[in-house]
Amino acid sequence: MASTYGENLRFTIFGQSHSPAIGVTIEGLPAGLKVDMEALSSFLRRRAPGNSPLSTSRKEADLPQFLSGLVAGYTCGTPITVTIANTDIRPQDYVSSRSIPRPGHADYTAGQKFGPYHDHFGGGHFSGRLTAGLCVVGGICKQLLEGLGITIAAHIRTIGQVEDTPFDPVEVNSTQLRALLNEAFPTLSSASAADMQAAIRSAKAAGNSIGGIIECACVGLPAGWGDPMFGGMENRISQAVFGIPGIRGIEFGSGFAAAGMFGSQHNDPFSTDGESIRTTTNHHGGILGGITSGMPIIFRVAVKPTPSIMLPQESVDLSGEKIQPATLTVGGRHDPCIVPRAVPCIEAAAAVAIYDAYLQQKKEERGWC
Amino acid sequence: MASTYGENLRFTIFGQSHSPAIGVTIEGLPAGLKVDMEALSSFLRRRAPGNSPLSTSRKEADLPQFLSGLVAGYTCGTPITVTIANTDIRPQDYVSSRSIPRPGHADYTAGQKFGPYHDHFGGGHFSGRLTAGLCVVGGICKQLLEGLGITIAAHIRTIGQVEDTPFDPVEVNSTQLRALLNEAFPTLSSASAADMQAAIRSAKAAGNSIGGIIECACVGLPAGWGDPMFGGMENRISQAVFGIPGIRGIEFGSGFAAAGMFGSQHNDPFSTDGESIRTTTNHHGGILGGITSGMPIIFRVAVKPTPSIMLPQESVDLSGEKIQPATLTVGGRHDPCIVPRAVPCIEAAAAVAIYDAYLQQKKEERGWC
Amino acid sequence: MASTYGENLRFTIFGQSHSPAIGVTIEGLPAGLKVDMEALSSFLRRRAPGNSPLSTSRKEADLPQFLSGLVAGYTCGTPITVTIANTDIRPQDYVSSRSIPRPGHADYTAGQKFGPYHDHFGGGHFSGRLTAGLCVVGGICKQLLEGLGITIAAHIRTIGQVEDTPFDPVEVNSTQLRALLNEAFPTLSSASAADMQAAIRSAKAAGNSIGGIIECACVGLPAGWGDPMFGGMENRISQAVFGIPGIRGIEFGSGFAAAGMFGSQHNDPFSTDGESIRTTTNHHGGILGGITSGMPIIFRVAVKPTPSIMLPQESVDLSGEKIQPATLTVGGRHDPCIVPRAVPCIEAAAAVAIYDAYLQQKKEERGWC
Amino acid sequence: MASTYGENLRFTIFGQSHSPAIGVTIEGLPAGLKVDMEALSSFLRRRAPGNSPLSTSRKEADLPQFLSGLVAGYTCGTPITVTIANTDIRPQDYVSSRSIPRPGHADYTAGQKFGPYHDHFGGGHFSGRLTAGLCVVGGICKQLLEGLGITIAAHIRTIGQVEDTPFDPVEVNSTQLRALLNEAFPTLSSASAADMQAAIRSAKAAGNSIGGIIECACVGLPAGWGDPMFGGMENRISQAVFGIPGIRGIEFGSGFAAAGMFGSQHNDPFSTDGESIRTTTNHHGGILGGITSGMPIIFRVAVKPTPSIMLPQESVDLSGEKIQPATLTVGGRHDPCIVPRAVPCIEAAAAVAIYDAYLQQKKEERGWC
Repeated sequence: MASTYGENLRFTIFGQSHSPAIGVTIEGLPAGLKVDMEALSSFLRRRAPGNSPLSTSRKEADLPQFLSGLVAGYTCGTPITVTIANTDIRPQDYVSSRSIPRPGHADYTAGQKFGPYHDHFGGGHFSGRLTAGLCVVGGICKQLLEGLGITIAAHIRTIGQVEDTPFDPVEVNSTQLRALLNEAFPTLSSASAADMQAAIRSAKAAGNSIGGIIECACVGLPAGWGDPMFGGMENRISQAVFGIPGIRGIEFGSGFAAAGMFGSQHNDPFSTDGESIRTTTNHHGGILGGITSGMPIIFRVAVKPTPSIMLPQESVDLSGEKIQPATLTVGGRHDPCIVPRAVPCIEAAAAVAIYDAYLQQKKEERGWC
Repeated sequence: MASTYGENLRFTIFGQSHSPAIGVTIEGLPAGLKVDMEALSSFLRRRAPGNSPLSTSRKEADLPQFLSGLVAGYTCGTPITVTIANTDIRPQDYVSSRSIPRPGHADYTAGQKFGPYHDHFGGGHFSGRLTAGLCVVGGICKQLLEGLGITIAAHIRTIGQVEDTPFDPVEVNSTQLRALLNEAFPTLSSASAADMQAAIRSAKAAGNSIGGIIECACVGLPAGWGDPMFGGMENRISQAVFGIPGIRGIEFGSGFAAAGMFGSQHNDPFSTDGESIRTTTNHHGGILGGITSGMPIIFRVAVKPTPSIMLPQESVDLSGEKIQPATLTVGGRHDPCIVPRAVPCIEAAAAVAIYDAYLQQKKEERGWC
Repeated sequence: MASTYGENLRFTIFGQSHSPAIGVTIEGLPAGLKVDMEALSSFLRRRAPGNSPLSTSRKEADLPQFLSGLVAGYTCGTPITVTIANTDIRPQDYVSSRSIPRPGHADYTAGQKFGPYHDHFGGGHFSGRLTAGLCVVGGICKQLLEGLGITIAAHIRTIGQVEDTPFDPVEVNSTQLRALLNEAFPTLSSASAADMQAAIRSAKAAGNSIGGIIECACVGLPAGWGDPMFGGMENRISQAVFGIPGIRGIEFGSGFAAAGMFGSQHNDPFSTDGESIRTTTNHHGGILGGITSGMPIIFRVAVKPTPSIMLPQESVDLSGEKIQPATLTVGGRHDPCIVPRAVPCIEAAAAVAIYDAYLQQKKEERGWC
Repeated sequence: MASTYGENLRFTIFGQSHSPAIGVTIEGLPAGLKVDMEALSSFLRRRAPGNSPLSTSRKEADLPQFLSGLVAGYTCGTPITVTIANTDIRPQDYVSSRSIPRPGHADYTAGQKFGPYHDHFGGGHFSGRLTAGLCVVGGICKQLLEGLGITIAAHIRTIGQVEDTPFDPVEVNSTQLRALLNEAFPTLSSASAADMQAAIRSAKAAGNSIGGIIECACVGLPAGWGDPMFGGMENRISQAVFGIPGIRGIEFGSGFAAAGMFGSQHNDPFSTDGESIRTTTNHHGGILGGITSGMPIIFRVAVKPTPSIMLPQESVDLSGEKIQPATLTVGGRHDPCIVPRAVPCIEAAAAVAIYDAYLQQKKEERGWC
């Protein structure tokens, strides 16, 4: 099922950019878990539109309403449905996108799949707005994982050609990560943040958009979570991450750089203090054979430049009898760079993947250990 | 389920490196499909060990035996189980890997997950040998997709620092791809092939190993296959690809390079001849919003250097009361570079992902078109 | 997932008797299907409370609100979420049911499962009220199946010891079934209806409740739908039917009577007019080997008497340090017999099971026929 | 997936009556579980053909061969594939069943589904022989449940019109159940056993067949296992049970008799000794709201008379241009009554359903209790 993720914790994201509401239906959360509403709202605000001069001017409060599954702040063990109203809608901005598909958007491909029944207004179900549902369930999972000693945070690694300092894959820790969670524009170097924001402003001024890379770290995981083959932590995380619009690639640990290395460089030696086991380097990014090693999980994702730009673009007009070439100028309100608002979405994707693996692990726990 | 893939076509890969047999159980293939056994065997030989001086010296004929689901060469509509015997086994080579985990392998993490019950001989279920099961089902899907006009092939894009010519993402076609399928060491430039093989031999001579990048193309797909969100072609393909041991990253279309681009550079203009629609560039790699555009699907995966190297490595000894540092020299028979044998595995992963999306599409077909 | 049904069409029912809303999230409905809102509302009214002097006095309009997935009355191909508000709530009626579990209800067992976090008000997620979600998706499927020439209807076969005429398993047809759909108290014999209503009134007057049997028929199915083994029509239907509270048994065709027959009596001879094939009797109830034969599907379900009765009952008091015996008189507003309101629920269960099998069949369609 | 069962423990049954082998692929069994091979073989012998003058003369040793997932008698945590060879095959007995479908068999309906590609020999995948795979996984689950204090056994409740004493639903216990497991023809009354066997012999002598009812009890379950709605114990068990050929109905606790009762009769009062909670009667059959109450689970299934009889039957001939009436006398070797061999299959179905619910429960375990 396309809009459904997870095996032990399973959720379905519903809604379209301009439907009455969007939201998520979640099944598989055990009973008795506390959901901190304030923390959840504050996590959702990191993704919500209209909070920064660098983002779209669409204003949505994004207040989650729990219709079921939560009693007095605790899960009751049955499905949770959360809705978020769509309030600031301007369908008139999208009248032409059915007949003239916007380059880089799903208008054309979704039209091929769903035919005239595709809800193209604002991108419909393909809109980045739908990531609010992912952030609801991911925000809950982040809280639950924090309770298990696991912290997840991401920073903006690059915007265009501007780079931030990378995570130290061995030394990254929960203190450093929690500091990032308080940043409106999370980077490790504040100089980089300024340069990146300048790059975004410059793209915006030119009617253009710009891409970037997000780097995410997950610390505090024990060794032994995750599964072989298609249940590996890489499979689980990438399956979730590619559910976010605009992601073009993902790499774990040394990632693509590993392809240029020798085994003697890439293998991480094990070391011990007599009681616990670590690796002295972390090219493996915390995952070996799909299973956590106890070292930080590190992964990076490539985010494409927002396809909505103010410049004229070549497209085709499908409204007539014959398909005709057409020049299109995209309307609507858009982010010149979706990377900053994608940061909490990436954290949410990691959180749901890890929490699902945690539930799997609970199921497999045995008497022998 | 960790060793299970797919929603419409669903298969479970079973076996360990040194169990009586390995194989795959496949459900969801419609009745009446012809399986060309000769073509399948020839596809499996591309992955099988012992066929090249550059690969492991373990010899396995890898003859697939169909126990069920096939009658007179046609699927009968009920589950197919295929087994491949394990014949050339040397468990004595792995006696130490339980107490001294091999760096870069799953010995340690699987031991943390499964405890003393982990089958560590030859890597158990984590062995690259298990990809034979993926190649059985992927080989069948490749045949079925060929019957639908879809061709999938990959080439070795890099070995260490040596590069091959990349695919032209717009012009790549089935003729070019089919030629690659006949190559023992598939590259677009024969000069690159020679240099790459030299790099592998040199790593081997040094007791070392080396990584690389595989680039895969899928041509002939219609527009409109695939699904939004977690059912996107990227999700489906990456979920399958990370089931292959040693993969560290995946990117689609322009991939990580997209993060450094402006929207005006990355967006692919639509063009038409009045009847059909194409894009004039293919940064999107044939996928928009998770759905095929009709342009070639292009993706690249990073393969790490084989963790088994002949050089001494630092590890830990778990056999005593206290964990002790230990130096390990890995035994067993190994590929100095798994990239060449991973090429058909990547094609197989793409094939199962695409065939599953095809069955999904059949289910959704409507009367209105 | 407990509250989720289906493989091709998949839906999750959410909500508790006294949560802000109940509803259903549906995935897998192809794009372009028309939903007739008036027909749906009229179907839901057959289940809604407060429409008969024989049912509970709780008043709920049960108006379905479509939050997503529907544009101008047509499915757009992405998830549909429908909510129904809970308005007429009296939590005070249930204060004691946490400490003194009601016999025949899930209070005790759900408390054992979910602990103090079980939402026990009005039965929580276990309330019969939740079948409104099943009726939303089942009502849609019934419409879609009608479009394919398939009609589903049920009648009340028994109430207590009062019997209605059974369906003629060979001659039952869509005309007869559609007539039943217009009945407030659907029986084949109007004399039976009167006697049954008298039996219900009599039980109510005694502060008691009464059970019954529902018989359902599905006509117009082609031969060849459904699957072997766990995907048989019996498995699919019973998996859905037991999702309705109070069902104690199900039987297909001759059902339990088949156990007392000889093969020569039970086997249904095939006959032909030269073009089509039928069976002259229908002990098999339209299903052979899990697959439809083209004959009417006939099944019966046993509905237990409503556990909520006005008479004092023996239970236990869990509120103190030691468990104590306790006598309980159940409050709340309840149906003295849930059979009449369960009729559309059974039809809904059959409809979702058959529509899921239909989508499966579409996926498997081949070129050879 | 039709031949796949389970969510936490998931298995796929493969094979056809006359394919090289049949078997099962199992995923989800945690590592470190001991499988007692002798106990498993002895369980499988209860189902195997050729062990009684009352059963088919087809001889199959039914020795399970574990290809993977088991090391030194313990599960290693990765998929288990078990095969059973088909040795005593007589395809010549089935030459006519493609063109002249046997009444009461799946020949016609499977032919409609799979077309000419249906493997009709010996019933193909629809053969009762396939239950050997269910008994392998069910036999393992029975062992694991015994280790948790849970015993499952069934007896023959009726054959034709001959009845056995029913289980006492309150007093049935593991001692009584274990005694049944040692019986070749399990009944509570030995007089009934003799009469039932006489009824079977008499049907056989007449070239006919006969049906019966199996009653199954599961004792030792704690309260709180199972899930609401579609995950109820009734749903899980019936989903598994209808995977066995020839089952026409299932009922839990008082079953269909509940439909004729008043609430005051059917509700089971709770009682306590101050520490634990029981019900004084057990009309609910150990399940309330889909969740175990700690009382014995009791259910009954109706088994139809074997469709293969020696008497001439009316059918149709599909081999010519026009469909023609035809008279058929079924060949092959068959059981005049499948009830005795179905007994271990029913136990197996209950065992897989309960073990799956157990794994679900482990996943949901929390800190608060």
